Amino acid sequence: MIQVSIIGSGNVAQHLIQAFAKTTEIELVQVFSRKPELLFSLVPNHKIISDYNLLKAVDLIIIAVSDDAIAIVSAQITLKNQLVVHTSGSVSMDALNSKNRHGVFYPLQTFSVSKEIDFKLIPICLEATTRKDYQILEKVAKSISDVTYNINSEQRKALHVAAVFVSNFVNHLYQIGNELCLENDLSFDILKPLITETANKIQTLSPTQAQTGPAKRNDTQTIKAHLSFLTNDNQKEIYKLLTKSILDNGKKL
Amino acid sequence: MIQVSIIGSGNVAQHLIQAFAKTTEIELVQVFSRKPELLFSLVPNHKIISDYNLLKAVDLIIIAVSDDAIAIVSAQITLKNQLVVHTSGSVSMDALNSKNRHGVFYPLQTFSVSKEIDFKLIPICLEATTRKDYQILEKVAKSISDVTYNINSEQRKALHVAAVFVSNFVNHLYQIGNELCLENDLSFDILKPLITETANKIQTLSPTQAQTGPAKRNDTQTIKAHLSFLTNDNQKEIYKLLTKSILDNGKKL
Repeated sequence: MIQVSIIGSGNVAQHLIQAFAKTTEIELVQVFSRKPELLFSLVPNHKIISDYNLLKAVDLIIIAVSDDAIAIVSAQITLKNQLVVHTSGSVSMDALNSKNRHGVFYPLQTFSVSKEIDFKLIPICLEATTRKDYQILEKVAKSISDVTYNINSEQRKALHVAAVFVSNFVNHLYQIGNELCLENDLSFDILKPLITETANKIQTLSPTQAQTGPAKRNDTQTIKAHLSFLTNDNQKEIYKLLTKSILDNGKKL
Repeated sequence: MIQVSIIGSGNVAQHLIQAFAKTTEIELVQVFSRKPELLFSLVPNHKIISDYNLLKAVDLIIIAVSDDAIAIVSAQITLKNQLVVHTSGSVSMDALNSKNRHGVFYPLQTFSVSKEIDFKLIPICLEATTRKDYQILEKVAKSISDVTYNINSEQRKALHVAAVFVSNFVNHLYQIGNELCLENDLSFDILKPLITETANKIQTLSPTQAQTGPAKRNDTQTIKAHLSFLTNDNQKEIYKLLTKSILDNGKKL
């Protein structure tokens, strides 16, 4: 069994704890949190600690805290030459304190505490400084997921930006769709099959092949009608910019 | 059996033909197309016509052509007092020639010829001028879909704009994600589970509850890092505008 401890009790930490509980290959040794009450339902009480001095040497310590806190937290660990990784898409591996061996264990997914998730399908992006450390990370990752990737820091940056576009920004467009429905006495449910199919399509078609709509067709009449329908300046601006971007894309092809 | 004819041979027409073929409640009487060769694999040859004078009186004629062509096509129909509908989200019901009874039969979905689709899950938005005509449309819609809605022209406009946001624009963001992957030697496959989960989440959470990411957290450091990572001006502008929109949204809550 590989011994793993986790620092953190937020979304990612909680999902990792649940995933490790389902595999016999990992022994979850300790979980550090300043808010132990968040963990009472997930971890046996004697494994929860709130004092860095109590952290035991294990095969791997995973820091799953907010980006800003990673450097501070890693500096507090009193162990030495311990393999320590963080789970962030946007923080450099070197943000981790140099007294320990370091790496990255980045599950590329959008986590909400209230929403269960099948970890087996989540790509885990791994980075380490030695082959031996990489193998430890790979074993841990493969115990909970079917998809692992070796991703260097530069690639991880690109991936994180791409993830913002295809997930955070996409969700914001869902929100605008929801607003337009509310304003017109329509149930957002009407849009849900369309949202599902739009995501399904690019599992087999490229986004270029999958593109449809007035901008793609250069249907200026419909575009004009939509712009005059929209009364919210912010929605209008987003409509204009994305329409222009799709049109420009069409010209490049 | 309800007798239905279709005018058109594009995406929507082809998907409708396939859906009607699966139900015993509909008899597809004729399909009109200027390009009959597109239909040879879908419709028995004797049902394909290219002359408007050959159109027979039926319970319903569905015009499934591009938005611009709807008015022209409906004027060519030589029948009178025939129930004629179009399938467009953005064209007014009154665009249909007044010599016939008219209505709208708008399946709210993104269609690609090369991608099969389960019509049962597609919401069909219906509009008619009399209760009797509405009942015909409802019967036809219910024979191929589990979800039908009575949507008036103003609501349909809103719905079409909303659909552009949650489908066409969303797909364009997928495309930008794809570009960022290509530029950094990453497979777009890494992003696919994230895309799926982002769409799945809002089936049970509201988009506001589902929102995550640096803009939602007001994580200015990550936002700055992302902007300096992006070299393409267009991508940068989209990143800025959508980030600002998410930030402004947070302030309203």
